[in-house]
Amino acid sequence: MKLWQKNTNTSTAVETFTVGNDREMDLFLAPFDVQGSLAHIKMLETIDLLTSEDWKVLSAELKKIYKEIEAGNFTLQDDVEDIHSQVELLLTERLGEVGKKIHSGRSRNDQVLVDLKLFFRSAIEQLVQNIEHLFQLLQQKSEAFKENLLPGYTHLQLAMPSSFGLWLGAYAESLVDDVITLQSAYKVVNKNPLGSAAGYGSSFPLNRTLTTQLLGFEDLNYNVVYAQMSRGKSERIVAQAVSNVASTLNKLSMDCCLYMNQNFGFISFPDELTTGSSIMPHKKNPDVFELIRAKCNQLQALPNDVALLTTNLPSGYHRDFQLLKEYLFPAFVTINSCLDMMHLMISNMKVKENLLKNEQYKYLFSVEEVNKLVLQGTPFRDAYKKVGLEIEAGKFEYSTTVNHTHEGSIGNLCTEQIKDAMRAAIDAFEFGKYHKAIEDLTA
Amino acid sequence: MKLWQKNTNTSTAVETFTVGNDREMDLFLAPFDVQGSLAHIKMLETIDLLTSEDWKVLSAELKKIYKEIEAGNFTLQDDVEDIHSQVELLLTERLGEVGKKIHSGRSRNDQVLVDLKLFFRSAIEQLVQNIEHLFQLLQQKSEAFKENLLPGYTHLQLAMPSSFGLWLGAYAESLVDDVITLQSAYKVVNKNPLGSAAGYGSSFPLNRTLTTQLLGFEDLNYNVVYAQMSRGKSERIVAQAVSNVASTLNKLSMDCCLYMNQNFGFISFPDELTTGSSIMPHKKNPDVFELIRAKCNQLQALPNDVALLTTNLPSGYHRDFQLLKEYLFPAFVTINSCLDMMHLMISNMKVKENLLKNEQYKYLFSVEEVNKLVLQGTPFRDAYKKVGLEIEAGKFEYSTTVNHTHEGSIGNLCTEQIKDAMRAAIDAFEFGKYHKAIEDLTA
Amino acid sequence: MKLWQKNTNTSTAVETFTVGNDREMDLFLAPFDVQGSLAHIKMLETIDLLTSEDWKVLSAELKKIYKEIEAGNFTLQDDVEDIHSQVELLLTERLGEVGKKIHSGRSRNDQVLVDLKLFFRSAIEQLVQNIEHLFQLLQQKSEAFKENLLPGYTHLQLAMPSSFGLWLGAYAESLVDDVITLQSAYKVVNKNPLGSAAGYGSSFPLNRTLTTQLLGFEDLNYNVVYAQMSRGKSERIVAQAVSNVASTLNKLSMDCCLYMNQNFGFISFPDELTTGSSIMPHKKNPDVFELIRAKCNQLQALPNDVALLTTNLPSGYHRDFQLLKEYLFPAFVTINSCLDMMHLMISNMKVKENLLKNEQYKYLFSVEEVNKLVLQGTPFRDAYKKVGLEIEAGKFEYSTTVNHTHEGSIGNLCTEQIKDAMRAAIDAFEFGKYHKAIEDLTA
Amino acid sequence: MKLWQKNTNTSTAVETFTVGNDREMDLFLAPFDVQGSLAHIKMLETIDLLTSEDWKVLSAELKKIYKEIEAGNFTLQDDVEDIHSQVELLLTERLGEVGKKIHSGRSRNDQVLVDLKLFFRSAIEQLVQNIEHLFQLLQQKSEAFKENLLPGYTHLQLAMPSSFGLWLGAYAESLVDDVITLQSAYKVVNKNPLGSAAGYGSSFPLNRTLTTQLLGFEDLNYNVVYAQMSRGKSERIVAQAVSNVASTLNKLSMDCCLYMNQNFGFISFPDELTTGSSIMPHKKNPDVFELIRAKCNQLQALPNDVALLTTNLPSGYHRDFQLLKEYLFPAFVTINSCLDMMHLMISNMKVKENLLKNEQYKYLFSVEEVNKLVLQGTPFRDAYKKVGLEIEAGKFEYSTTVNHTHEGSIGNLCTEQIKDAMRAAIDAFEFGKYHKAIEDLTA
Repeated sequence: MKLWQKNTNTSTAVETFTVGNDREMDLFLAPFDVQGSLAHIKMLETIDLLTSEDWKVLSAELKKIYKEIEAGNFTLQDDVEDIHSQVELLLTERLGEVGKKIHSGRSRNDQVLVDLKLFFRSAIEQLVQNIEHLFQLLQQKSEAFKENLLPGYTHLQLAMPSSFGLWLGAYAESLVDDVITLQSAYKVVNKNPLGSAAGYGSSFPLNRTLTTQLLGFEDLNYNVVYAQMSRGKSERIVAQAVSNVASTLNKLSMDCCLYMNQNFGFISFPDELTTGSSIMPHKKNPDVFELIRAKCNQLQALPNDVALLTTNLPSGYHRDFQLLKEYLFPAFVTINSCLDMMHLMISNMKVKENLLKNEQYKYLFSVEEVNKLVLQGTPFRDAYKKVGLEIEAGKFEYSTTVNHTHEGSIGNLCTEQIKDAMRAAIDAFEFGKYHKAIEDLTA
Repeated sequence: MKLWQKNTNTSTAVETFTVGNDREMDLFLAPFDVQGSLAHIKMLETIDLLTSEDWKVLSAELKKIYKEIEAGNFTLQDDVEDIHSQVELLLTERLGEVGKKIHSGRSRNDQVLVDLKLFFRSAIEQLVQNIEHLFQLLQQKSEAFKENLLPGYTHLQLAMPSSFGLWLGAYAESLVDDVITLQSAYKVVNKNPLGSAAGYGSSFPLNRTLTTQLLGFEDLNYNVVYAQMSRGKSERIVAQAVSNVASTLNKLSMDCCLYMNQNFGFISFPDELTTGSSIMPHKKNPDVFELIRAKCNQLQALPNDVALLTTNLPSGYHRDFQLLKEYLFPAFVTINSCLDMMHLMISNMKVKENLLKNEQYKYLFSVEEVNKLVLQGTPFRDAYKKVGLEIEAGKFEYSTTVNHTHEGSIGNLCTEQIKDAMRAAIDAFEFGKYHKAIEDLTA
Repeated sequence: MKLWQKNTNTSTAVETFTVGNDREMDLFLAPFDVQGSLAHIKMLETIDLLTSEDWKVLSAELKKIYKEIEAGNFTLQDDVEDIHSQVELLLTERLGEVGKKIHSGRSRNDQVLVDLKLFFRSAIEQLVQNIEHLFQLLQQKSEAFKENLLPGYTHLQLAMPSSFGLWLGAYAESLVDDVITLQSAYKVVNKNPLGSAAGYGSSFPLNRTLTTQLLGFEDLNYNVVYAQMSRGKSERIVAQAVSNVASTLNKLSMDCCLYMNQNFGFISFPDELTTGSSIMPHKKNPDVFELIRAKCNQLQALPNDVALLTTNLPSGYHRDFQLLKEYLFPAFVTINSCLDMMHLMISNMKVKENLLKNEQYKYLFSVEEVNKLVLQGTPFRDAYKKVGLEIEAGKFEYSTTVNHTHEGSIGNLCTEQIKDAMRAAIDAFEFGKYHKAIEDLTA
Repeated sequence: MKLWQKNTNTSTAVETFTVGNDREMDLFLAPFDVQGSLAHIKMLETIDLLTSEDWKVLSAELKKIYKEIEAGNFTLQDDVEDIHSQVELLLTERLGEVGKKIHSGRSRNDQVLVDLKLFFRSAIEQLVQNIEHLFQLLQQKSEAFKENLLPGYTHLQLAMPSSFGLWLGAYAESLVDDVITLQSAYKVVNKNPLGSAAGYGSSFPLNRTLTTQLLGFEDLNYNVVYAQMSRGKSERIVAQAVSNVASTLNKLSMDCCLYMNQNFGFISFPDELTTGSSIMPHKKNPDVFELIRAKCNQLQALPNDVALLTTNLPSGYHRDFQLLKEYLFPAFVTINSCLDMMHLMISNMKVKENLLKNEQYKYLFSVEEVNKLVLQGTPFRDAYKKVGLEIEAGKFEYSTTVNHTHEGSIGNLCTEQIKDAMRAAIDAFEFGKYHKAIEDLTA
């Protein structure tokens, strides 16, 4: 069934090609499509494009469908091409002719736009929750391991003393900035495109301010041409924010692969979290970290994939945009599973103790010795030269006591301050605002 | 001159290869390097790593250098590899041994980190101003042309009536969302990495909170490993925000190229803003729009270029990051020149009047006719089918009067609301906060 | 079942995460996995790692499985993680202990490497055939429409006369160069990695030259570390070649979308190949071209996606590579369906006749007039200026007769020469060489 | 000076914006622009568009300019926008009116097309030579270090014994496949676009076959629309091939950074090839490898950058293409300098001896022990289990003698076969063919 079907049948090959993965992808949109329709018909009733009677019937049935979706009892029938058609079909089957009326004053274009914005809004919220979950673990482990020293590398060369506390705390703080980039994405998607029709508005006296309130959007995409233009743009901006989280996990995974390597040997994991080899019986491979690293590279590729799909296209809707669903929807599944797996791994990580007692790490302490000389009055450049010459001559002497006290250093991790920063970053979303509206709408 | 030079000389080939374009790129950082040093030495004085006397002398000379930079009287000498070395060299030449003391408690790593954050903070502010300039023009032209109808296309097929007012207003609103994505970038870079040294902190009792205040940063990059990790990450996030602005200009340019095409013929420009052909005497080519389109594609490639450079690298500094300067610094020059050129072009644009009177555009009005039937009580699907059959039978009748009244439609552009949204988006940066600090620091 | 399973069970979450889409993807590899095993066991028999008796039994059963795969009667059981395990499981179920022996002297690493090379070799051949099919149509239509003139644009501005023959013939020739880039990809993948084991070779006296001959490879990946290193690299090179074909189809699709636009109106298609709109009854949208354009952008993103996944990784196998299957295998499905759909569309395309008789296209002929003056002795620059001034003064006179005779021009399309070039490009693959070997191996 | 200048002046801002970096970039094209003009005027003379007298004068002067370019005595004057204008200006200054005649029957479009193809042809040849230079060194070092064992890693975990000979030989072989991908790029660019004018051919009776022979091209871009379409496409294909070389160097650099890390400690370099730290006096950093790694990532980004710039554009010339010069020309400088620096580093590399005697590497030998059991008759799966259990029980016994004999293994590097493969790959270019033509043309 196609909404726009006229007298002519489209060839089967064309239909198969154009429907593509939509039936699978559109399941992600199901609850949001119903939310959008509930707001739309309420608004239609207020401008007399729907009778009160029709609205009541339609509203009740849509809420029923909403509950079926929430209960997991919803699929697309075999011959239905998308979620919009499926919902309309159910209404028509159950209510008769009145079911057709929900499409007045709306185009599939603004219908899918509003579905997408509602989906992204919700998906960002869920992602933020998952990030916070990992953040808390990283902070907890950072505190737990704050006394355990670790070599710090620059240029992959031994540089200065670090600690497991510092290392894990860094990734916690990285997630704070990632959440900050999600804020902009959230602000951009939390605007109402409904009422833009096919991107040029409507001659119906729609009340877009009302649907904005009903759906709990912060604001409108005012200009209807811009509302349409937000397609592709929202996806790119959301993908950018997701890619930032992915980049943090990618780096942590690479660190873990390196630290599990036997030449480093800094961390280890229980057997059931590593994998073996078909020919090497001693192997305990970090496959989970490798796959997080790789999946996060898939996610980092997303913003560019979106850009390639959309660049150089003039304004106005193009069918090309349909494929963006395949980019974005599975991406949220992937990033969430990467966060989960990272949580599982870090929860079970064992760290090696007393690492820096080993003489191989002695030069890590060269800066400490330089600094001591400076504190005793030697100008920095001279102290640097003196210690450098001692090292070259094999006469370097050092103490392994690390006494770092400033903000964010080994002895002063600022865990609380970083926690406050995360709290503030998450609070800024004010997710509660939209929850209230959606509850009212779907209750 | 190299800060880290020991007894051995690096081969000339290695030096040429490793210095690369740094001497050119580092000019972008000059004022920010001095700002960072001024804050650093003030802090050193408060923790007794610098005498008050030394601080006074160094501070006075740094302020002098700052003025030279602002006056454009500053270059890198031929044998100096980067901005940090150049400033230190000037101090030592002019003040003697004391000049060397500014490097205590600091590494080139956190020095360049703080330079970059200060640069990005300033560059984002300038970009936002340029965006606002174009925004105002687009709004003004949108109002000026609000009565001029234009065909609206979907799938590049004639769809519904649009207007020049709607079209230009859409790009104004697009810039609002672009500015919103710059907000996150700004928040991420407006944090102080100074004091992280080589990424593992320092045994000196640094006061990082003080330098944060002196430099007008909103907050610290607390964890020193994270401070270092922000390299590459800041660049990617800033590049993402710049790419969003670029994407808006890319689409507007493509529209303009299309609308200037003789088959469309919707807009035109004075001869001095178009270019000719070496063999076709009648040509008036839209080279400016084509080059904006292309340059904006260069900018859209940036986030991916940054990701490719940095992905799969473990934590800690890598020399790879040096090349990020070549990506980001010229990018700001490019986006600003694209905004300027777009401003110049749109200022001079002439639009074709009475476009939709032409019969070739009659089907644009089909939805209007469907909607009339709906308002008279026909269910939408039936009205749609009726008009569709009339069109197929060549019997379609229509009126060219467009009566759209809802928010964001042809008759109700919401120019003021969009203006307010831009105002709010810009105010949220609170640029004034850091101006005050920098003035106090450098005065 | 996992080949490498020891005493410890991997957690279910880890297993689900690490298996990923492998079970679906590995179906693409089924016939090639059996080909590889057939060659491997024959070789094992020649070096006495397998008895003649065991080889006979295993070989017969593998050939049976091969026929099942070719007949479409093959799936992965629910608890089997990949194709290699499935085949080994079938053998063990059917033959008992002897089934385990096929893995001697082999690792999963070189097993999947050889599967991939065999898959790519075959997929490239099929792709080349599909390209040739479209090529032939484009050449045929180019000849059919060679008298039909078309405006030629530069900068999207009217430039000079073109023709439908020239336009379609250009895309035919573009495919020749695309096939040439597939040649390099083919040469790179048509080399035998079998025997490289986990990337460091084997202490067994393997005969890699023999398996090379048995599988019809042109040569070996000699160095076993390089054989492993070809993972990721083969994928990138194949993706690059596929992206070139995609780029050609992308441009042709964009041309078609533009030419179907009513302002151009150069081409049209039967209703059953276009789609409608849910609110605009007059629409006949070019969805097929839009989706080819978009899918070809997905394919153009591939080489970069592969680069992001693999860059900065040191040598040696990493689990990351597993995800490359998801990039490459569906890509061949996509490019082939795009070629098919393009064939369907171009087969049914109608072109508008006598386009250039319309006065709006008169300046297309300005160069012709300049050239006439040149042939009469006026220096080019002067002729150019003269015609230019005539145009500015509105006095331009012209003839619509186009008399282009040189190679590749409107009047001399060189269809035969381009056909010969395609023939030569395809013959260079010498696909027959490997067919013979595979037939002998699997018969 | 602009070739196409009419009566109207373009605004200065437009001129600055549109000229961009062309003046700098076009210096790369200088010799090729003259080659193209020499072939063009010879052809013009044969079709009587140039008198013999004019041809002689022009030809002599162009050859003089060619020698000036080769001698390095050539620049673009300040007010000249591109190389084509500069050459024409010189001719006109030196010869008067006749200088203008070289532009007959040609557009700037096909002029720059032929310049680019000639440039790429030459640049690919130079690149191949540089690759061969590094290839020879890698093979030589591979042989020199073939007895030096090295740990082989999979998943970055200790796997099996490798050797420096195997490791370096792998990169030599990788370069063979990279050269193979350059073959396709070479074939695609070694075709003549001259005579395609602005992409729609010419009414002059041009003899394109003649200019093809004069310039030593292998074939023509026949279809003139396709000749134009090769812009952007040639660049992408060339960029893909360059990115393949870059990928090989990227991986080798990452390996070297890792192997120089003190936890590995496999290789070292003289002090003058490493760099120090401004605060850590013991540092010997691998900056050269880090910068090769990073620059090679810049190069790996190129094909995508080209795709983003060009995708979704319809056929015909667009000014956007101008920016491709900035992508491709410096890329050749970069890849060549990376090859040179890699050569310098590998030439000076010292490898650590007797690495595998260290007990930390004992499990590398587990597969050897499994295989011994297999050769003694134990089925593989059982042998694997036995050794695995010994390892878990801490009872693993092994010998450090490695006896690998098959093709491409530690004991049988196949250096000669790989050398032959490189020889064959390079010979296939037949560079000599075009040298002869160019010598005849410019002598």
